[in-house]
Amino acid sequence: MTLSEKEILSKKNLPPSEKVLSTEIGEYVKQIFAPIQGKSIETRIDEMVEDFSQDFLIADSANTNVDIECIVKNFGDTKIPAQPTNFESYFQSLNENVVAHSIHTSAPQFIGHMTSALPAFVRPLAKLMTAMNQNAVKIETAKALSFCEREALAMMHRQIYNLSDNFYAQHIQNNQSTLGILVSGGTTANITALWCARNKSLGAKNEFLGIEKEGLSAALNFYGYKGAVVIGSELMHFSFDKAADLMGISTKNLMRVPVDSNNRVNIKALRQAVADCRQQNLHIIAIVGIAGTTDSGSVDPLEEIAEIAQENNIHFHVDAAWGGPVIFSRKYQHKLAGIEKADSVTIDGHKQLYLPMGIGMVFFRNPHLASSIEKQASYTMRKGSFDLGKRALEGSRPGMALFLHAGLKLIGLNGYEFLIDEGIRKTQYMAAQVAAMPEFELLADPDTNLLLYRYIPEQFREIVANKKLSETDNQLINNFNETLQKMQRQIGRTFISRTTKTTISLGKEIPVIAMRAVIANPLTTEADIDAVLNDQIQIASEISIAY
Amino acid sequence: MTLSEKEILSKKNLPPSEKVLSTEIGEYVKQIFAPIQGKSIETRIDEMVEDFSQDFLIADSANTNVDIECIVKNFGDTKIPAQPTNFESYFQSLNENVVAHSIHTSAPQFIGHMTSALPAFVRPLAKLMTAMNQNAVKIETAKALSFCEREALAMMHRQIYNLSDNFYAQHIQNNQSTLGILVSGGTTANITALWCARNKSLGAKNEFLGIEKEGLSAALNFYGYKGAVVIGSELMHFSFDKAADLMGISTKNLMRVPVDSNNRVNIKALRQAVADCRQQNLHIIAIVGIAGTTDSGSVDPLEEIAEIAQENNIHFHVDAAWGGPVIFSRKYQHKLAGIEKADSVTIDGHKQLYLPMGIGMVFFRNPHLASSIEKQASYTMRKGSFDLGKRALEGSRPGMALFLHAGLKLIGLNGYEFLIDEGIRKTQYMAAQVAAMPEFELLADPDTNLLLYRYIPEQFREIVANKKLSETDNQLINNFNETLQKMQRQIGRTFISRTTKTTISLGKEIPVIAMRAVIANPLTTEADIDAVLNDQIQIASEISIAY
Repeated sequence: MTLSEKEILSKKNLPPSEKVLSTEIGEYVKQIFAPIQGKSIETRIDEMVEDFSQDFLIADSANTNVDIECIVKNFGDTKIPAQPTNFESYFQSLNENVVAHSIHTSAPQFIGHMTSALPAFVRPLAKLMTAMNQNAVKIETAKALSFCEREALAMMHRQIYNLSDNFYAQHIQNNQSTLGILVSGGTTANITALWCARNKSLGAKNEFLGIEKEGLSAALNFYGYKGAVVIGSELMHFSFDKAADLMGISTKNLMRVPVDSNNRVNIKALRQAVADCRQQNLHIIAIVGIAGTTDSGSVDPLEEIAEIAQENNIHFHVDAAWGGPVIFSRKYQHKLAGIEKADSVTIDGHKQLYLPMGIGMVFFRNPHLASSIEKQASYTMRKGSFDLGKRALEGSRPGMALFLHAGLKLIGLNGYEFLIDEGIRKTQYMAAQVAAMPEFELLADPDTNLLLYRYIPEQFREIVANKKLSETDNQLINNFNETLQKMQRQIGRTFISRTTKTTISLGKEIPVIAMRAVIANPLTTEADIDAVLNDQIQIASEISIAY
Repeated sequence: MTLSEKEILSKKNLPPSEKVLSTEIGEYVKQIFAPIQGKSIETRIDEMVEDFSQDFLIADSANTNVDIECIVKNFGDTKIPAQPTNFESYFQSLNENVVAHSIHTSAPQFIGHMTSALPAFVRPLAKLMTAMNQNAVKIETAKALSFCEREALAMMHRQIYNLSDNFYAQHIQNNQSTLGILVSGGTTANITALWCARNKSLGAKNEFLGIEKEGLSAALNFYGYKGAVVIGSELMHFSFDKAADLMGISTKNLMRVPVDSNNRVNIKALRQAVADCRQQNLHIIAIVGIAGTTDSGSVDPLEEIAEIAQENNIHFHVDAAWGGPVIFSRKYQHKLAGIEKADSVTIDGHKQLYLPMGIGMVFFRNPHLASSIEKQASYTMRKGSFDLGKRALEGSRPGMALFLHAGLKLIGLNGYEFLIDEGIRKTQYMAAQVAAMPEFELLADPDTNLLLYRYIPEQFREIVANKKLSETDNQLINNFNETLQKMQRQIGRTFISRTTKTTISLGKEIPVIAMRAVIANPLTTEADIDAVLNDQIQIASEISIAY
């Protein structure tokens, strides 16, 4: 007996067992997979989802004010139901339990993290990508998509490196060349870049087959090193800790060099670190420059780092996961000068390219560098094929290239330039507001579009102004800001994140809890920024000074 | 000047510069991001995408027969346009250049890879996920989603390990516990499992701070090992090569043990390999059992492997990326007996859970094992928080948990059981057909729903039947099958993949090129299977015997 369409579409919320008898399960399953029969289900869910999405997207608040404890209670079921749940009641409960208590990452007053409103075209495109269900790992499951991906990556490569027409004609659709790799995010991109750098620099030589085939200990032994390190600023993203751990070189050998008061790596200290490692006979796998620190959006002096790397013949990696798209701005691209000298560059699509979550990229100046991590398999991934999974950390993966390709074409250079310029302009506005308001202290001049500041309770304002803050006072202010940020998040009208900065005061390292604003949402206006600051002032007035 | 809706929606394909003047770029960009204004663009794209998707999904053929060289020509543009491209013409060209030449992974006669038709609900859900744009890395960007993800993973964990109500009540929403990690795919899942196993087994002890902080060489040195290895069958997926390389233990130390004629690891040889490593003072990070080899769908004898691992106190990892969902089948779950003894298990959502690309999972019997890879960062990832990125290879990632959760609820145990049982039933049908047809040789009895066979040109049929095939004959048959598979793929009506098997003949290792069928699509009927085989016979008749 087949379920009639009407039964499936019935809005009555009967228990599933009454709707789908076990004898019918096969028919039911076939129906939801069939392009024609499943269509009516899809259409009905489409309508529901359309409503949920629209309500979600127009919401003003950053968040609901419901306690996490209340939300958790809805997610304690560990048994998969035997029979299929009625899909209408399922989507209804999904809306009530998940969508309703998700973060409004697109809200204009949610300015605390690197997620933002997205352009309208990504939503239907997500549906198309899912309908196509290509697997980018190999050409046999991603025919045209593989070339589309290579084209999109080449466009980004050109934006970074700006090499010749000839260069791109030769490499864009050459299966021996890898201009870039599309990955799930910046962490995988950074790991991949260091993996390539490690394998290249400790590769095969004479009788040694290379680190890939012989391992890290044998490689260090063969090349006569005591250990292997990666050097960068203390503000390196925690993905580098993951990379150092995973690659077996140890997090201890992730050398974190101090930054200056503007959160840029101290070049003198970096040069010294390189010299020290050389003297200690430690192999330097890569020097990392950051274009947009996660903490404060600061950009390291890439030209100077490139010089040190070049002088010492060391791989230069730039983590531009956040700041990479600043190259689209004619006004601000000078901040990234030197990025074109990088051996590898990480850029996230789901950050300042305004694409959905799950798009990271790593680019290589040398199109053959990624050969150092190439793998083969008999069932696919054949030498000489266009299988993109040959030179990648990941295997099967979705056609996210569609978003990248569409973003570059539908937003264009000028569109991205506008987005970058606006973000920086509004951040400067916020910095000026913060500096002018007695309630706040600006903690650093913003380099791009992240802003660090803190609230100063009234009784400390004069002491702060006179720079006479004691450690105890600072601790009280820290506690106050932590409470303020948590209350703001809980109330949910607006949102700012927080981080901990270390500053030197009277020769001592002092931790400062900072409010961290990320201004990237094109929907955020100056009025929204004022509203967020006023919200903080209002909440602060309700915090007892016992803190 | 603001672009009117009508202008934006105009179907006239004017050059972008006439549609969007540079002075208007800001208005244009704001418009495509705004939930209300952008809506009309979204609605129009939705309509287009709806048509493209429907045409794509109802297509009968596996593929277009257009040459790759012709497709490549459309993807040679390395310049990002300055002005936004008109979105209607963009989507039109996307349809003509990409969608039209993508692989019909859902077509009933595309039975060569592990991608298949998907249930109707994933398409609208993809749109909802993209609208929500949560970032699962941290609670501040994925409030309810984090708990929804934990619930979905706990449901799968219970399906594998079936521990007590008490156990699940204690761990499901406990931020100190990790029942599983949602990742982008099976490769990352396998790497994560081995990373955890490595860090746990070479962890801190006495004055040694552990491999994470001191590195691989120091760890081997402290524990007194000559090297570190991972042991499994020769059919281990190539993600294990990536893991062995990345972790610094070398691909040479990925010990590949021979399989029997049914493609299951030879237990005696495995036991010997373990003993050999112990004798050579090599640290065994993990023993890998495979539940559904990529090559042939075979399942290793997991009970026996578990016993060896237990006796020797070695981490037991099961790569069930493909075969894991066989546990849903009461009829066939016995094949996976022993999986519940695994310390870690990989399962892919985008394979036999019939979810979109980009969903892998790793599960842990010990909910605290993943602490061995935990990392923190000041701007987020705080100790004691529910930030899911703390214990994961990846950082920012999308809310793919929505698909997993929906799949388990909307398909249910019985639905998944039907899908598994049907796949195996149809594979047995195909095996019987192949065995009965003179044109084909069955290369192994199918263990689950993958089938290896080959075409035998007429003049070799008697020799094959009499098992008197020479190496030269075998090579000719190999060449023939390779040509046949490539022609079939090129013609595009139907699709079967190919792999290379090594068989022992007269004491010699002989490579056999095999046709590889993957029968997982619920839309594939017995008639479709017949059609695929008949298509091969027809194409074979056109191949000159010069091969």
